[in-house]
Amino acid sequence: MSDHETKMTPGAKAAAGNFFEDFRLGQDIRHALPRTVGAGDAALYLGLTGSRFALHCGEPFARALGLPGMPLDDLLVFHIVFGRTVADISLNAIANLGYASCRFGAFVYPGDTLATTSTVIGLKENSNRQTGVVYVRSIGVNQRGETVLDYIRWALVKKRDAGAPVGPARLPTLAPEVPAGELWLPPVFDPARWDDAATGSPYRWQDYAPGERIDHVDGMTVEESCHMIATRLYQNTARVHFNQFAEKSGRLGRRIVYGGHIISLARALSANGLGNAFRLAAINGGRHVNPTVAGDTIHAWSEVLACWELPGRRDIGALRLRTVATRDRPCHDFPDRTEAGDYDPAVVLDLDYTVLMPRRG
Amino acid sequence: MSDHETKMTPGAKAAAGNFFEDFRLGQDIRHALPRTVGAGDAALYLGLTGSRFALHCGEPFARALGLPGMPLDDLLVFHIVFGRTVADISLNAIANLGYASCRFGAFVYPGDTLATTSTVIGLKENSNRQTGVVYVRSIGVNQRGETVLDYIRWALVKKRDAGAPVGPARLPTLAPEVPAGELWLPPVFDPARWDDAATGSPYRWQDYAPGERIDHVDGMTVEESCHMIATRLYQNTARVHFNQFAEKSGRLGRRIVYGGHIISLARALSANGLGNAFRLAAINGGRHVNPTVAGDTIHAWSEVLACWELPGRRDIGALRLRTVATRDRPCHDFPDRTEAGDYDPAVVLDLDYTVLMPRRG
Amino acid sequence: MSDHETKMTPGAKAAAGNFFEDFRLGQDIRHALPRTVGAGDAALYLGLTGSRFALHCGEPFARALGLPGMPLDDLLVFHIVFGRTVADISLNAIANLGYASCRFGAFVYPGDTLATTSTVIGLKENSNRQTGVVYVRSIGVNQRGETVLDYIRWALVKKRDAGAPVGPARLPTLAPEVPAGELWLPPVFDPARWDDAATGSPYRWQDYAPGERIDHVDGMTVEESCHMIATRLYQNTARVHFNQFAEKSGRLGRRIVYGGHIISLARALSANGLGNAFRLAAINGGRHVNPTVAGDTIHAWSEVLACWELPGRRDIGALRLRTVATRDRPCHDFPDRTEAGDYDPAVVLDLDYTVLMPRRG
Repeated sequence: MSDHETKMTPGAKAAAGNFFEDFRLGQDIRHALPRTVGAGDAALYLGLTGSRFALHCGEPFARALGLPGMPLDDLLVFHIVFGRTVADISLNAIANLGYASCRFGAFVYPGDTLATTSTVIGLKENSNRQTGVVYVRSIGVNQRGETVLDYIRWALVKKRDAGAPVGPARLPTLAPEVPAGELWLPPVFDPARWDDAATGSPYRWQDYAPGERIDHVDGMTVEESCHMIATRLYQNTARVHFNQFAEKSGRLGRRIVYGGHIISLARALSANGLGNAFRLAAINGGRHVNPTVAGDTIHAWSEVLACWELPGRRDIGALRLRTVATRDRPCHDFPDRTEAGDYDPAVVLDLDYTVLMPRRG
Repeated sequence: MSDHETKMTPGAKAAAGNFFEDFRLGQDIRHALPRTVGAGDAALYLGLTGSRFALHCGEPFARALGLPGMPLDDLLVFHIVFGRTVADISLNAIANLGYASCRFGAFVYPGDTLATTSTVIGLKENSNRQTGVVYVRSIGVNQRGETVLDYIRWALVKKRDAGAPVGPARLPTLAPEVPAGELWLPPVFDPARWDDAATGSPYRWQDYAPGERIDHVDGMTVEESCHMIATRLYQNTARVHFNQFAEKSGRLGRRIVYGGHIISLARALSANGLGNAFRLAAINGGRHVNPTVAGDTIHAWSEVLACWELPGRRDIGALRLRTVATRDRPCHDFPDRTEAGDYDPAVVLDLDYTVLMPRRG
Repeated sequence: MSDHETKMTPGAKAAAGNFFEDFRLGQDIRHALPRTVGAGDAALYLGLTGSRFALHCGEPFARALGLPGMPLDDLLVFHIVFGRTVADISLNAIANLGYASCRFGAFVYPGDTLATTSTVIGLKENSNRQTGVVYVRSIGVNQRGETVLDYIRWALVKKRDAGAPVGPARLPTLAPEVPAGELWLPPVFDPARWDDAATGSPYRWQDYAPGERIDHVDGMTVEESCHMIATRLYQNTARVHFNQFAEKSGRLGRRIVYGGHIISLARALSANGLGNAFRLAAINGGRHVNPTVAGDTIHAWSEVLACWELPGRRDIGALRLRTVATRDRPCHDFPDRTEAGDYDPAVVLDLDYTVLMPRRG
């Protein structure tokens, strides 16, 4: 049985997506729609996020770092790779529960073509037998077969038939972080060629310390058109983002914003305080604490979790960061979990990730 | 008298568009603004429609079919060619009544420049003498003079002056369909190089049968920004799409969505069930049954009208399809005309068209 | 002290922008984020404005004029150059008061990289000591160091600390216009190669006369998504455009549209009547008379202030124009200042600028 046959409702050619009982441990899925990316995607990404990282704004800046051209924003790559998987993995998902071991690889340049494959690495039916959690490892590659992204995610997926038999629960081992030694690193460059005036930030790796907190100050209001254009650009087909007719009877009575768009907005806001964090090297873990809907205004703050030297590198170091995004609540007082472990109700995103930063030479 | 002089109000340099009495049978009109298309247009089209046809997503897929690169979506080409005509043909139109004999020609690639000319092929004043129907044949060509689109449309156009004399009615002969033998066909390719996993659909030409109906399942809500960005990208200047101040006193009290945007959304939705329909070869006829406004959610279903072998081709066949789009009504029960011939009130589009599909080798 | 150090709040890495007392006369500021522009920006600009000037639509039209390719819209260049300056100059501005001596230089082509520097040329504290006016001359250059834009603007900027000492007032001398002899002119071309049918306008430089008024007829409604996508594309970070949570307690209770977006819409509307005004050569002065918010519909009219021959040129001439834009008010009766000098309350923009037009050969 091919992967595609698994997702067909008998008598109908339109795919209804896989349900929990359609997945099997070790199953490999080659996702549809290899996607050539380019200058149009990059411009739209700027227009939809207002991102301000110099590496994705100017060709000369990129070349000064020894790169052959201006790479696409890491999160644009993430969304396109992720977008490939939705029709097969999460069309019948109730929630996207988490991410782990997300490692960004080769830079992606205009003209590259991205394709995604996934392997089912864990399955666990819930006790009510209505749903189960599906763990997949997804890998995005370019047209030369180089890995551009490699990550684990897990989602709560409905069963088509509660009575369908499923195998025993199998949970993958999830690492708490991507270790420094496993990060994909760009070519060595001369730190003297790094231009703080071009990035707008004078702060380098040595200027950050564990425990430091940064309020990113600005807020960005989400509009229906903006999140829908972004999510369609990624060809993410999850229905809750697009269909107001269905969602008016749904959980929130509203379309829900793709969580990845919130990650993009938080990262874009973070340029104010982390302007030299030129590369998203890894996502160690992340949680969409609450849904976002159009009209919400996103603010964000970050905490430095750790400062890592990188083996053999004097030009760059890594920062492990935690960025928290809120809706309709500024972050000057760093809204967070309470003592009891509950989140401030305004928090929508809690993302643990690793960035690369230039060192002072 | 040049074509441009026909559309000037004396004493004013801003064009007011042609009125019914300004057209004459056989008149040739060269439309303004030859348009170079590119990667930016393609990305915006994806962002505005979420379209999922593999040929317009990935360069390697296109090259495997023997094409020199990734062509632009056929409907993006349609909208740009059509957009050129609006200022001359339909600025004073009350309604766009229909399409016929629409044949798609040479693929369009980034960097190509599209220009449109039209010939007036029919004119018929209405009995109240306030309006008349103008039939035009429009041809879009690329910079090498190759036809990329050739179609007939007719629109109900106001008279400037009800008393203005006009010639006798002349109606063109309209063909009910573009015959298989007249379709423009891409180069022959090896069906073994067609990759169903890339398109996400295992169904080829042989898998469809006349009378088969497909519910495309998903719904897409239209936002003001989305339809306006699309329609401006095509430089379609019809006023009802953009000017809320005027439209608040208009027929619906709202801006009306460009009907072509609904065709695009219906085609994009149809990828779920018709994922291998890689080329829109012809539009045999079409009707915008009802207007759409922002906030409406579009669903669609399709019926296979006919399956055609193509002369001399074993790699591809054609399907004549009818796709019906609705607003705020899912299509699992195929909303259609009633026995009496009236449409279900939710229907907004009834499009009869022909697509190319790979055959099983 | 570097420029960047001036804008940091002690103990915080997120920039809070410069306040009035942070500027000093003669200060040079190199703005962050050199920006490579391309086909994606051009397509988005079309989608956001619906602009219809032939030079920015078609490559062959541009080449017929002897240009190496299709340049980007002058106002897209303006917004990108201007956008670089906001984080340093006007993040704490209450209002952008005016423009002068704005001269457009070398055409900008896809692949060019734009960088902006500014010099503080005037400073004047207000009598209440809460604010002051900052005058800057900003220069945008391409990657070859050629000037693409050179302009003066002044903004009303808050003081961080009303008690902070500042120097004596110094006001720059502002020219009322950019003289014909100082305009940057494109290469000479053969007027016979200018194609009126391509531009859609038969009117050349000789057809306009001082005092002539043109109603541009059409209206364009502004949506939140549209102005936000535009302003983010320019990486203009002024907060009032993006943060509804903050603005709901602000002056209008609403996000305010970037005034430059209104300039773009007015220029786009002006193609109907000024279709051969192929280049914006200078902005002599301009005033955002009233703010615009989403939902407003923009109309515009223009007056010819002067018709200039250009030294040594028989192919082109210049028109000095004044374009007035309104909200929710058509312009058939040219809404303007009253006898007493007050503006019609519908006026949002009064722009005095110079365009180049082909002459009849």
